[in-house]
Amino acid sequence: MSKVFDVAEVAQHNSSKSCWVILYGKVYDVTNFVADHPGGAKVILRLAGKDATEEFDPVHPAGTLEESLKPEALLGTVDLTTVPKKADESATAQPVQEHPPVEALLNLAEIEQLGTAKISKKAWGYYYSAADDKLSKRWNTEAYRSILLRPRVFIDCQECSLETKLLGNEVSMPLYVSPAAQARLAHPTGEAGIAEACRSFGTLQIISNSASMTPEQIVEHASPNQIFGWQLYVQDDRTRSEKMIARINQLKMIKFIVLTLDSPVMGKREDDMRGGNVLDELTEEHDKDFSKKAQDKQVFFGLDPTLTWTETLGWLSKHTSLPIIIKGVQTHEDAYIASLHRPQVQGVILSNHGGRSLDTAPPALHTLVEIRKYCPEVFDKIEVWVDGGVRRGTDVVKALCLGAKGVGIGRPPLFGLAAGGPDGVKRVLQILTDETKTCMRLLGVQRVDQLGIQHVNTRMLEQQIFDGPSGLEACRAAHLSKL
Amino acid sequence: MSKVFDVAEVAQHNSSKSCWVILYGKVYDVTNFVADHPGGAKVILRLAGKDATEEFDPVHPAGTLEESLKPEALLGTVDLTTVPKKADESATAQPVQEHPPVEALLNLAEIEQLGTAKISKKAWGYYYSAADDKLSKRWNTEAYRSILLRPRVFIDCQECSLETKLLGNEVSMPLYVSPAAQARLAHPTGEAGIAEACRSFGTLQIISNSASMTPEQIVEHASPNQIFGWQLYVQDDRTRSEKMIARINQLKMIKFIVLTLDSPVMGKREDDMRGGNVLDELTEEHDKDFSKKAQDKQVFFGLDPTLTWTETLGWLSKHTSLPIIIKGVQTHEDAYIASLHRPQVQGVILSNHGGRSLDTAPPALHTLVEIRKYCPEVFDKIEVWVDGGVRRGTDVVKALCLGAKGVGIGRPPLFGLAAGGPDGVKRVLQILTDETKTCMRLLGVQRVDQLGIQHVNTRMLEQQIFDGPSGLEACRAAHLSKL
Amino acid sequence: MSKVFDVAEVAQHNSSKSCWVILYGKVYDVTNFVADHPGGAKVILRLAGKDATEEFDPVHPAGTLEESLKPEALLGTVDLTTVPKKADESATAQPVQEHPPVEALLNLAEIEQLGTAKISKKAWGYYYSAADDKLSKRWNTEAYRSILLRPRVFIDCQECSLETKLLGNEVSMPLYVSPAAQARLAHPTGEAGIAEACRSFGTLQIISNSASMTPEQIVEHASPNQIFGWQLYVQDDRTRSEKMIARINQLKMIKFIVLTLDSPVMGKREDDMRGGNVLDELTEEHDKDFSKKAQDKQVFFGLDPTLTWTETLGWLSKHTSLPIIIKGVQTHEDAYIASLHRPQVQGVILSNHGGRSLDTAPPALHTLVEIRKYCPEVFDKIEVWVDGGVRRGTDVVKALCLGAKGVGIGRPPLFGLAAGGPDGVKRVLQILTDETKTCMRLLGVQRVDQLGIQHVNTRMLEQQIFDGPSGLEACRAAHLSKL
Amino acid sequence: MSKVFDVAEVAQHNSSKSCWVILYGKVYDVTNFVADHPGGAKVILRLAGKDATEEFDPVHPAGTLEESLKPEALLGTVDLTTVPKKADESATAQPVQEHPPVEALLNLAEIEQLGTAKISKKAWGYYYSAADDKLSKRWNTEAYRSILLRPRVFIDCQECSLETKLLGNEVSMPLYVSPAAQARLAHPTGEAGIAEACRSFGTLQIISNSASMTPEQIVEHASPNQIFGWQLYVQDDRTRSEKMIARINQLKMIKFIVLTLDSPVMGKREDDMRGGNVLDELTEEHDKDFSKKAQDKQVFFGLDPTLTWTETLGWLSKHTSLPIIIKGVQTHEDAYIASLHRPQVQGVILSNHGGRSLDTAPPALHTLVEIRKYCPEVFDKIEVWVDGGVRRGTDVVKALCLGAKGVGIGRPPLFGLAAGGPDGVKRVLQILTDETKTCMRLLGVQRVDQLGIQHVNTRMLEQQIFDGPSGLEACRAAHLSKL
Repeated sequence: MSKVFDVAEVAQHNSSKSCWVILYGKVYDVTNFVADHPGGAKVILRLAGKDATEEFDPVHPAGTLEESLKPEALLGTVDLTTVPKKADESATAQPVQEHPPVEALLNLAEIEQLGTAKISKKAWGYYYSAADDKLSKRWNTEAYRSILLRPRVFIDCQECSLETKLLGNEVSMPLYVSPAAQARLAHPTGEAGIAEACRSFGTLQIISNSASMTPEQIVEHASPNQIFGWQLYVQDDRTRSEKMIARINQLKMIKFIVLTLDSPVMGKREDDMRGGNVLDELTEEHDKDFSKKAQDKQVFFGLDPTLTWTETLGWLSKHTSLPIIIKGVQTHEDAYIASLHRPQVQGVILSNHGGRSLDTAPPALHTLVEIRKYCPEVFDKIEVWVDGGVRRGTDVVKALCLGAKGVGIGRPPLFGLAAGGPDGVKRVLQILTDETKTCMRLLGVQRVDQLGIQHVNTRMLEQQIFDGPSGLEACRAAHLSKL
Repeated sequence: MSKVFDVAEVAQHNSSKSCWVILYGKVYDVTNFVADHPGGAKVILRLAGKDATEEFDPVHPAGTLEESLKPEALLGTVDLTTVPKKADESATAQPVQEHPPVEALLNLAEIEQLGTAKISKKAWGYYYSAADDKLSKRWNTEAYRSILLRPRVFIDCQECSLETKLLGNEVSMPLYVSPAAQARLAHPTGEAGIAEACRSFGTLQIISNSASMTPEQIVEHASPNQIFGWQLYVQDDRTRSEKMIARINQLKMIKFIVLTLDSPVMGKREDDMRGGNVLDELTEEHDKDFSKKAQDKQVFFGLDPTLTWTETLGWLSKHTSLPIIIKGVQTHEDAYIASLHRPQVQGVILSNHGGRSLDTAPPALHTLVEIRKYCPEVFDKIEVWVDGGVRRGTDVVKALCLGAKGVGIGRPPLFGLAAGGPDGVKRVLQILTDETKTCMRLLGVQRVDQLGIQHVNTRMLEQQIFDGPSGLEACRAAHLSKL
Repeated sequence: MSKVFDVAEVAQHNSSKSCWVILYGKVYDVTNFVADHPGGAKVILRLAGKDATEEFDPVHPAGTLEESLKPEALLGTVDLTTVPKKADESATAQPVQEHPPVEALLNLAEIEQLGTAKISKKAWGYYYSAADDKLSKRWNTEAYRSILLRPRVFIDCQECSLETKLLGNEVSMPLYVSPAAQARLAHPTGEAGIAEACRSFGTLQIISNSASMTPEQIVEHASPNQIFGWQLYVQDDRTRSEKMIARINQLKMIKFIVLTLDSPVMGKREDDMRGGNVLDELTEEHDKDFSKKAQDKQVFFGLDPTLTWTETLGWLSKHTSLPIIIKGVQTHEDAYIASLHRPQVQGVILSNHGGRSLDTAPPALHTLVEIRKYCPEVFDKIEVWVDGGVRRGTDVVKALCLGAKGVGIGRPPLFGLAAGGPDGVKRVLQILTDETKTCMRLLGVQRVDQLGIQHVNTRMLEQQIFDGPSGLEACRAAHLSKL
Repeated sequence: MSKVFDVAEVAQHNSSKSCWVILYGKVYDVTNFVADHPGGAKVILRLAGKDATEEFDPVHPAGTLEESLKPEALLGTVDLTTVPKKADESATAQPVQEHPPVEALLNLAEIEQLGTAKISKKAWGYYYSAADDKLSKRWNTEAYRSILLRPRVFIDCQECSLETKLLGNEVSMPLYVSPAAQARLAHPTGEAGIAEACRSFGTLQIISNSASMTPEQIVEHASPNQIFGWQLYVQDDRTRSEKMIARINQLKMIKFIVLTLDSPVMGKREDDMRGGNVLDELTEEHDKDFSKKAQDKQVFFGLDPTLTWTETLGWLSKHTSLPIIIKGVQTHEDAYIASLHRPQVQGVILSNHGGRSLDTAPPALHTLVEIRKYCPEVFDKIEVWVDGGVRRGTDVVKALCLGAKGVGIGRPPLFGLAAGGPDGVKRVLQILTDETKTCMRLLGVQRVDQLGIQHVNTRMLEQQIFDGPSGLEACRAAHLSKL
């Protein structure tokens, strides 16, 4: 570690045969690690021989280096005097654009607009993108808009409270922050910045398995009664997941695990691919030298595509006693099967992954209405949450009217973070809180448990809902036979 | 009162600790009033130490100062020589744009266009705005457009009359002017200017509870057989409402009271908020010092959010024998309940407040068709009026065909007033009169009572109407149990 | 008549008290005629004291002056040397735009485009305009587009003929030219130019009652087997209509009378009103001095708004033995009543007057499908023709599949005439002929009588068709009671 | 053949009376051939007296000259020194636009964009164009978009294979290249370039009857197990078709014949007509001198419009034992009839010819759903393939879910060829392969035979499907009576 390299020497190790990188002023030999990089070999090779700190930092939580590399990979430090200075960008830069304060923003569209202006094209590509032609992303929003509300008059609405329980935990509102990766691309406070905003509002937050900070860092400053969930993508190297679960089990603020199933392979997010985000390098086809390991590049590096109800839930039960929520349910059949796994499974999140996985997958509202139609008993057995396309308080109310217990927002907190750090996220939560209360009062409703189907006209939506033969009985039979 | 202040002295009292304002050349100490201001503290504080006449005048009816302030609040007059002259704006102003005369305008869209060009951005924001994404505002118009007419041929249509009765009062047309606040923002003649136009046409006008003139001023020049209604927002300080009702009871031209229920809290009107209109300051969240009084800022300052059928109608019956129309009904259930309160209640106005309250609330046409579907007997018991989105004579006719007795217009008279004062409002009434007659003649109809469902094809609209289980029986039961 | 006036003298008679005009070099005193002018007083007064030839000529058929004015109205001639020369417009004019030849135009949209470029804004306004928001005009086109065709394969389509019979007359195609006024605004050959094109193609033409040429002029160069119809607007001065009918009875090429009922009053055609077309002056409200005569300005000057089935058909039967077609039927009820008047009535034209009368009136295709649904026996009793929105051969075929015998085009021949005189109209007929044949061949059909409902998928259209209670029985009863 | 002409001499033979052309440096007298030219006389006459090589070459397969002209037509060679040099276009040309490599293109829309930029307006017109208003072309795409997918979770999707059988032949994917003419307009490698790409991917290719290369050239470099079909347009001179079939019978890689029926006459492709493509000259109306032969110009020069099930299939059975696929089926009735002709007929291709024939003809998805609705037994008897509008892997999957066995793409390979030659076509196949696999994995499906109606929500599409009375029984009866 005492060895000091100059930049020119490092620069010679710029291929898959000998691959060095500079990170935080230290020099690492990652030649043997390249093929195992969960983010793909190509990302590293592009930075081989260079200082990779700027690319590495915002997308890797603390401890990543230590976990990934053997001690001997650390070769020494770099002689900082040999690092060429960057041209002073500010000298020729455009005059800084004046942005409005987040308090002046009226709605989530304006927050997205400001957040977009403040972050890099690459970060924007990652947040904004959705699969293929973004049809599901559009459906997510349009489905809410197609529902009309039915306000009642002459009802005392002086009191109005959003308080509710999610999985038995008291929260100040039925809104929660969906798991979304890479918050540090938006703002240095990252996922902890979101947690800070949630603390102010008593809002539940689900921590992404691909967060850019460790769970410990994210919950560090939480208030005593703050509630978190943690998202699990099961790794094909199960021991990695088991280690993470063991850490999660130690964090008492984390009350449940969100097992995410809607992305066994990654959707084709073209805006992101154009921006060149690291995650999307995974789909790169031309990474010849290192392709032997992955049987098919479409499968996530490191993600286990072989999950099944029986095997996976059985494995999970050995490693945690936290309740499980299944995220990514998109048919009434799967919601029904999930309900058969109570009590281990205590909820489902109807989600098409923000339209990011399979284009023309149904919006969560469709699945919600489908469950009402085919197997409403699911609502009695487990909690049904939804996410995707929620941009207004009226959207929150509509989902609740149709039976959802929790309503998730994914992109808005990220764009809020981009727009103004933790204050931007607070602005998002404030706007939605105000809009939701206004909506409830105008409907003549004081508490969320008073909302019901009598408050919505879903006539137009109903005309789009699946009405083919239900696979319910087949699912049940298939499931039972495996037990 | 003899004391004379110079401007610099007044300017020092510019905080919540000591707050003076100049109004009409007089100096007032409003420090103790700020927290009670129905329009919120912040509006006043922004003008503290300054001449507030220009902001105050167009939105407060005569007598407001006397009602609101104690005599000792009047400190004296301002020395006008100390008032700095405004820079001569005309010197550098843009050349005045030439506008067409209102007689040259062909339709209500053109009138809105001219009115928009002639008024301040702030006034436009107030008139134009609607809740959230303005979806209900758009629905209001689109609902009419989705109905096709069914013209019959070979019918003598030489005679064609729009005369009808509203609540037993003879009027020259089934069209009426909806209650809309702040007409003086459009034109100095204000609500009285609208009354002048209505006098020419024999049109019924409903006076807003938030009119910028007193009811007495508005009806002052009415013709003997001119008909008015008066809108009531019940104040939480009921004595204030009782005083107003007592004044209304004295004005014999006012034939009924329109109890408005569709805005127990204010909708989120973003165009208006951007313009900074005073009314919207109510939703301001950051008004810390003076927030103690209001339990929740979403509740209108001064408006009573606790109204119920039994309590409120009972209270009202003690203070007036005028017939009541319930405005803001948006479900067939509430229309039905209203009909149970006959004879005190003699009508309902199906209204989503011009899309200004709850976004995605149903257009009045939906509710009208819903009543036809679930409880058509309502039409026999009370009068059903509609407003929102009416822009063409064909719209008027369609509402009448579906059972409406009266059809209200809210924004068009305001934009007419903005475009040309009373003559602009007359142009609005002339255009709608002509279009309505043309439509009736082309349908083969001579009198409004001949219009019926045989004249409309509502097939497309019907496919959007609520068809969930009706809450009718539950409503009836709940209502009866309270009697 | 020998008297010669100079221009200055004529110019002094420029009011309703003394109103002279110059027409074709002659001076007329029209003071006593102004109030009787079928086109309204104002049009004349605007030209009082001036040379009105340019305005008068294209909209009045030959003989109008003689019919309208008494002999003593002719005062003499104008001294041409006193007429000021017009500034030489060509000197400063824009370079003439190069237009493509009509043969190069591929479809009717391109013909409308070229025609629009070649005519005055005023003429364009008259042709293009439709009522109010032009929703019916758009529906007319969209209705065709919403129908899908069902092509059959493996059918011999070498032969393909459009020949058919209309009211027993052999014609070369089921397409006909609808009656449309003021063809000379498009081209000096006017309606005779259209007749020339129809002669080339063996196409039926219906002559407008408001044609800019006399029927005699229009049919003058017809081929022996060329077929015409003549449109009748019944005048309130019935003797005027009777005189015209008598002339029509003499023209053996005119085989039937099209009694037009869809415009008992004129629709509000705003594009036309903006252009200032003479016909639209009728709706002018401010023509104070001469308004006494007309009870209501909305009624066409000179048109009889009192027509009824029994009275009018009875009157007509006394003046002609030509078969009658009722134009402007827009409900199945009226189609049914018409069929009860066979044999005098031999057909109906389903028409909303090109969307020019009542906005949101149904497109003809709707009425056609309505008849199929409620009273298909009408097709057996009388011929059903349609017009409005036909722009493609596929449109023609769809109407025929649904039971229409004749398919009318109104604006396309006018725009064709504007684009290239008679050759432009021929291009219109050629394009539609070719497109119609192509469509039939691709459907696997050789003759128009083979087209049927099996060739169309009207599923989407059916979802828009009136499905309220039919007024059929009431109509029948009402009708029979009058007999 | 030894004779040498100079250019000026050739130029004198520039009319239908004496028509010479230069092709590949040789001079031909084509005077007697002009009227027989399958592409119409006019095309040749436009080039009469000139060097026609540039126009001739990309649209005529090798051997065309020898087949079409008698030996004596070859007059000699041209003296190349007399040919005027073309102005050096590169000197004044725009700087060459930098294009991205095809590997960087993310989807088929980007490939079409690049291909469009690289080819002539004329070639683009031919590829891009569709009939009339391109409504069917739009429907083709929109139909896919209106279907939602139903992804299942917790299914092992590590393995995913697109392998399937088409007509018993093993192929690597259910995707095939539709027959499309004139590939050499896109790239010199032409149809052989497409074959090269198909070889890499194991993809089936159907060779167009109007290919710009001979079948022998196209299959020349095929791999041993590469599969082809060959499209047949039956010529009115049947011996020509018989000769071609005999050649096809010799090419063992060609496994079936696609008898195309959706274009007995050519649709009106206006973009193509504007570009002046040779094929569209066929519809030219003004080709007076040579019009005697063709009874109606709408009939394809040389194509037989008299085909029928019994006659044509009977004739075909005498000349080949290859299985037949009927292309262009657009109704369930015709699909049903086709299934009665098994085993000679082994499949149908539901196709509206890419929207190029009859505008508002149904998209293949409609017909597919129609068959499911009226005669699902067809799927058991013959294979049903579809084409038109497929632009995403999700589209491929949706068609398979609804019962299609093969899914064709027509324009994308042509635009791929235009964008990058064989590599561009490979990029098209790679993108669709990847997208299709991603879609299957996200649905929870490993093999194409596992896809079924349970994976799609076709609710919106179903509302557009024909529901008139089926012509099935009549078809069956008519068909049987002919046997």
